Amino acid sequence: MKKLVNDVDDLLMDSLRGFVKAHRDLVTLNEQPAFIARSENASQGKVALVSGGGAGHEPLHAGLVGKGMLDAACPGQIFTSPTPDQMMAAAEQVDNGAGVLFIVKNYAGDVMNFEIATEMFDGESASVLVCDDVSLPADHSTGRRGVAGTLIVEKIVGAAAEMGATLSECQTLGERVNKATASIGVALTSCTVPALGKPTFEIIEEEMEFGVGIHGERGRETVALKSASEIVTDLASVIETELSITAGQKVLLHINGFGGTPLIELYAVYNLATKYWQARGVEVVRSLVGNYTTSLDMAGCSMTVTLMDKQFIELWDAPVDTASLRW
Amino acid sequence: MKKLVNDVDDLLMDSLRGFVKAHRDLVTLNEQPAFIARSENASQGKVALVSGGGAGHEPLHAGLVGKGMLDAACPGQIFTSPTPDQMMAAAEQVDNGAGVLFIVKNYAGDVMNFEIATEMFDGESASVLVCDDVSLPADHSTGRRGVAGTLIVEKIVGAAAEMGATLSECQTLGERVNKATASIGVALTSCTVPALGKPTFEIIEEEMEFGVGIHGERGRETVALKSASEIVTDLASVIETELSITAGQKVLLHINGFGGTPLIELYAVYNLATKYWQARGVEVVRSLVGNYTTSLDMAGCSMTVTLMDKQFIELWDAPVDTASLRW
Repeated sequence: MKKLVNDVDDLLMDSLRGFVKAHRDLVTLNEQPAFIARSENASQGKVALVSGGGAGHEPLHAGLVGKGMLDAACPGQIFTSPTPDQMMAAAEQVDNGAGVLFIVKNYAGDVMNFEIATEMFDGESASVLVCDDVSLPADHSTGRRGVAGTLIVEKIVGAAAEMGATLSECQTLGERVNKATASIGVALTSCTVPALGKPTFEIIEEEMEFGVGIHGERGRETVALKSASEIVTDLASVIETELSITAGQKVLLHINGFGGTPLIELYAVYNLATKYWQARGVEVVRSLVGNYTTSLDMAGCSMTVTLMDKQFIELWDAPVDTASLRW
Repeated sequence: MKKLVNDVDDLLMDSLRGFVKAHRDLVTLNEQPAFIARSENASQGKVALVSGGGAGHEPLHAGLVGKGMLDAACPGQIFTSPTPDQMMAAAEQVDNGAGVLFIVKNYAGDVMNFEIATEMFDGESASVLVCDDVSLPADHSTGRRGVAGTLIVEKIVGAAAEMGATLSECQTLGERVNKATASIGVALTSCTVPALGKPTFEIIEEEMEFGVGIHGERGRETVALKSASEIVTDLASVIETELSITAGQKVLLHINGFGGTPLIELYAVYNLATKYWQARGVEVVRSLVGNYTTSLDMAGCSMTVTLMDKQFIELWDAPVDTASLRW
C-alpha cells in the first residue's frame, strides 16, 4: 500500500490535528469524542448545522465547517459512521439556542447513529436525510445514498441559517434542495482503504464502474472504458430523466472528483457537461468543479445537478468562509 | 490509460474552456495564442504579473490568476513550455503601463521562451526565476528547478504589485522570496502523461522516489518506502540545512500534494511536519495544505518552507481572489 501514513490507526487523528492547525482561524478540534467545530460560536439564535460521516471523503465534511455552512462535523473512522456520542457532544457545543439541524447522508450506520444522538440530545433538533445518488433505483431497499449533493444541501441551508431561518425552515429547505438534486458517478480505479491495504475491487485497464458510491464499492455495472464525452452523456442523461429537466430550467452543475483525478480532467469533463446541458436549452447558472466529496484516492468523477430557483441561487451566492469553500 | 479524456490532443483546450466557464467572474481565455487573463484588467499603474509553464500542474498557474496574484497565465501542452507568442500576447493584454513581471520556473524551455518573449515585447518587463527545488545540488548544471515554491512567490509578489510596488521592487521582492524558499518532494507512484498513455517510470510497491520534480521524472534516488514521520524528517532536514533554519525563526509551511494523494494524508503529513519544526523552536506562522502544484495523478507530496519576515507575512495575508486561492 502506497500511502503517506505512520500507523494506520493514527491516520485520522493525525489528519484532524493537522487540519485544525492549518485552519486554526476557522476551526477547533474536540478530541474525545472527536468533532470539528467553528472556532467562534455563531451568533445566538442561529440554527446550528451538524453533519458528519466516515472519513475518507475529505474535504467533506470538516472542510465545510465555518461561517455560512456547517457549525460542526463529526468524522468517523474511514468509511465508518461516527458514533452518537460524537454527534451529541458536537450538537451540545454548537447549539445557539435555536436548535440543531443534523445533515445526514443516507447510510444505515449514519442514519441509526444520528437517530440515537437525536434522542440523547436534550436540545431541539431536526434532521435532513441526503439521498442524491440516482445510480440506485428510487425504491432501493436501503434507499438512495447521499453523495456529492450533500455539499449543495450544506451550502444552501448553511446560508439560510446564517440569515436567520428557523429550525423548521432549515429542515424544509434542506429537503427541497435534496429533492432538487441528483448525482451519479463513474470510477476508473478502486480506492485503497488504509486498514485493508489493497484496492477494494479489481478492475481491468479497459473497464470502469458506472454508478459508483463513495466507499470503494463497485458501481451498478462494470462497463467498457468510454471517452469523456460518452461518460458525460451517460451520467447527464440519467440525471436529466430523474429530475425531469427541461429546456429553460436553471441548474447548478457540480463536477466532483473522487480524489485521484486531476483538475485538468475535471475541468475538461465540466466543459463537455456544459455543452450537454446547453444543447438541451438548460442554463448552467452556477458551477463547482474539484475534489470535494472524495473516496480516498479513487480515480473518477461524479456529476451533480441541482435545479435552481431564485432562492437557491441567492443562498448559494451568499458568503461562505470554510477551509475548502470560500467566497 | 485510465483518464477522463476524448482525444488526448483536445484535453488541454477542453480543460481551459471548462476552467473559464466555471470561473467566468474571474478569468477569460484567449484561445489563439492560448492564455488565461483576469476578466477585468487591474488598475492602471499596477505592475502586471505573467506566469506560465506546461500544463499538468493544475491549479498552478491558471488557478492563481486574479486579484492579488497573477494577471495572466500561459499554459503549454502537458509538461511542455508555452511558446513566446503566448507570453507576449498575454503581456500585451495585461500591461497596465507599469511594466510586466514574468515569473518563470527554472526549466530550459520555459527560460528560453520567456527570454524570447521579453525581447519581442515592446513594453517594459523584468523576470523572476524560481528555483526552489533543493533536491538538486545548488551547482547543478541546469540550476535548480522551480516547483511548489512558485505559488509562494506569486502570492507575495502579487500582493505587493496590488499595493503599488514598482516593477523593480516586484522583481527584487520575488528574488528575495525565491531565495528564502526551499522545496523537496517524494513520489509514491509515477504519473501518466496522456500522450504517453502509461506511467513515466516503473516503481515497485516497496519503494518510493526521493527528491522528485513535477514532470514525472525519477527522483534523485529510489529508496525503500518509509513511514510518514520518516519521510517528513527526511524532507525537512534537507530544507533545514539548505535555508540554515535556526530556532526562533518564523516560517510558512506548505505541504503540497502531487495530485494523487488525498487530503486526509496531506493534513496528517502537515501535522507531523509542524512537530518537526516545533521541536527545533521554529515557529510555523502560516500554512498551506493541498494539491496546488501537481504532477497530474502522481501520488506523493512536497514540503516547501519559506523564511518569513514581517513584510512577507503581511503580503501573504493580503486579500487574494483566484479560483484556487482565496481569502
